[in-house]
Amino acid sequence: MKAAINRSPFLRQIRRRPLSVLGPLAVLALFYYLFFTSSKAPSKYSYKTKKNGFFSRQHDVIPRNLPGDHIAHYDLNKLASTPMAVYNKEKVLILTPVSRFFNEYWQNLLRLTYPRELLELGFIVPRNKDGDLALKKLEKAIKQIQTGKKENRFSKITILRQDTESLDNQVEKHRHALKVQKDRRASMALARNSLVFSALGPYTSWVLWLDSDIVETPSTLIQDMVSHDKPVISANCYQRYFDEEKKQDSIRPYDYNNWVESEEGLKIAENMAEDEIIVEGYAEIATYRPLMAHFYDPNGDVNTEMELDGVGGAAVLVKADVHRDGAMFPPFPFYHLIETEGFAKMAKRLGYQVFGLPNYLVYHYNEA
Amino acid sequence: MKAAINRSPFLRQIRRRPLSVLGPLAVLALFYYLFFTSSKAPSKYSYKTKKNGFFSRQHDVIPRNLPGDHIAHYDLNKLASTPMAVYNKEKVLILTPVSRFFNEYWQNLLRLTYPRELLELGFIVPRNKDGDLALKKLEKAIKQIQTGKKENRFSKITILRQDTESLDNQVEKHRHALKVQKDRRASMALARNSLVFSALGPYTSWVLWLDSDIVETPSTLIQDMVSHDKPVISANCYQRYFDEEKKQDSIRPYDYNNWVESEEGLKIAENMAEDEIIVEGYAEIATYRPLMAHFYDPNGDVNTEMELDGVGGAAVLVKADVHRDGAMFPPFPFYHLIETEGFAKMAKRLGYQVFGLPNYLVYHYNEA
Repeated sequence: MKAAINRSPFLRQIRRRPLSVLGPLAVLALFYYLFFTSSKAPSKYSYKTKKNGFFSRQHDVIPRNLPGDHIAHYDLNKLASTPMAVYNKEKVLILTPVSRFFNEYWQNLLRLTYPRELLELGFIVPRNKDGDLALKKLEKAIKQIQTGKKENRFSKITILRQDTESLDNQVEKHRHALKVQKDRRASMALARNSLVFSALGPYTSWVLWLDSDIVETPSTLIQDMVSHDKPVISANCYQRYFDEEKKQDSIRPYDYNNWVESEEGLKIAENMAEDEIIVEGYAEIATYRPLMAHFYDPNGDVNTEMELDGVGGAAVLVKADVHRDGAMFPPFPFYHLIETEGFAKMAKRLGYQVFGLPNYLVYHYNEA
Repeated sequence: MKAAINRSPFLRQIRRRPLSVLGPLAVLALFYYLFFTSSKAPSKYSYKTKKNGFFSRQHDVIPRNLPGDHIAHYDLNKLASTPMAVYNKEKVLILTPVSRFFNEYWQNLLRLTYPRELLELGFIVPRNKDGDLALKKLEKAIKQIQTGKKENRFSKITILRQDTESLDNQVEKHRHALKVQKDRRASMALARNSLVFSALGPYTSWVLWLDSDIVETPSTLIQDMVSHDKPVISANCYQRYFDEEKKQDSIRPYDYNNWVESEEGLKIAENMAEDEIIVEGYAEIATYRPLMAHFYDPNGDVNTEMELDGVGGAAVLVKADVHRDGAMFPPFPFYHLIETEGFAKMAKRLGYQVFGLPNYLVYHYNEA
């Protein structure tokens, strides 16, 4: 077993710290609690099932505070993840690992039309110079919203600092070398796990994983994605660019981590050493997996679904119960997959199906 | 991949519900918030590292509420999991899946001397008749404490209802048949995952997994276990009984899930089909693994440590960061292990070491 661990030096590199110094873990965080806005007397919790529900009003799932003895009763009898998320006042937690703060990401987030009082945000920022800069910008943006008009505020915002040395501050070109990619993905997996383990509450219905470099989505992103009522569903991540040949604005595929397993992919995995991983999108590993990025049809139905075996993290909506059942982002090779791709495999291992929306586009930042 | 899922019918059985009806998930829960007891103005968060900490007082990690705009700043800069847990005011989350309420469990919990204001409790109760009964007793016990003297109250208590059909309500004899054990362990894994994903906060330093049928521990259980400063550490679970032969009270080993991997164990795993699991303590699978239960020495040092490869769930203390990095309880075979034994493997896979305390006893309820 020792040997197994030693065989993955990249995992060791990204260990937060040696175990001997794990003790004095120092994390800086900021916590905005905007829960306790109701002063009504608490209803009693109920033993009855949903059908015979005790409550008549859907928003009874919002927790109430008892100022007297600082006890709040919280009723989850009606917790659900449904296509009628807004109507049912289902809480959505948006989770974003941040290594750079893109103003376009934030502006796009503010344009989302899902009710703010049902939205919680969670960020994790690496503890380094770049992270400090990103955190300062993020905090400034957050303060502006959370101290502004009540109806514009998010329900709750959590910011975690990550102890991991960021592997994210390379320029885009270098970032994609296969070896660097493996380290980066393992580090990202740890960041995502910290976020979901720390920020998911017993009241959360949906988790939207939205990467910090996603700068443009439909403003109805959440409503559109919940309407598919899938355990895990991933948007197609493209990038806007200027086509020098045609001298016009254009779009191109960006995220190749949304894919369907192939015979070749399975064969490669079978012949791999236990701790090797397949990372999609590299010539070194030709899996011939059908990639969702290539299934985009500009004239196709935007609601077209396709079943997937691997997902990227650009914009993925997950029913909170998938995480609660144990689905996390393996930072170690899991069926020779890590991070979001390993997460998809784990969700499937837990009995859930994973889907993608090939014609539903979100856009990645363009460094150019 | 479909085939892989189909090969595990026991996992399917314990799926909460078919995906088609996953939507209207109904969970009853009770939430006691006892956080917001301070009315001091919030300190600013700090970019500085622990060493150059902005704050001088340790209890600045306790969140403060701003009654005006319902925003609380939460500073985790000093979050740590150390042997000086009480001194550092480290928050401990005690998690217990409950299928029966044992008054002895509750009384033992109340005898623990770790400061109550640093203790949070989390319970998950199956949604069936037995669960309803257990919940009623649990709530009655909780109410008595949480409406009593302020200094006796726990910091926060969360109760979740589990949708899974309980497989736990068999009498002890039947409960241990190998096949039933597999189903039960997978169901328990889902319950444990729901608990830790829902109840772990960004402020939690330690998680103590304490089974509902553990009726006797030293009152300094938490302090004793944190003093070892290990990522994962498991007490030795015994049972009191009346020795009919010797006509006297005696003790005997109860939990065989704390073990060291053996050559035989590895060989068995190697020759197993992908979805088969090894469950320790059955004649059907002779692993010859050294079991911690057999290493108890009544005259030995109570602080003796031994490195383990598998743990049971009776009384296991985990640094919260082990969970945050992604360690969960696999309900599916993970290296041919599930639940707490799979958790130990996963912690090791994440680079952590797992330990046991062979001479440190906790006692399981005796049905006799």
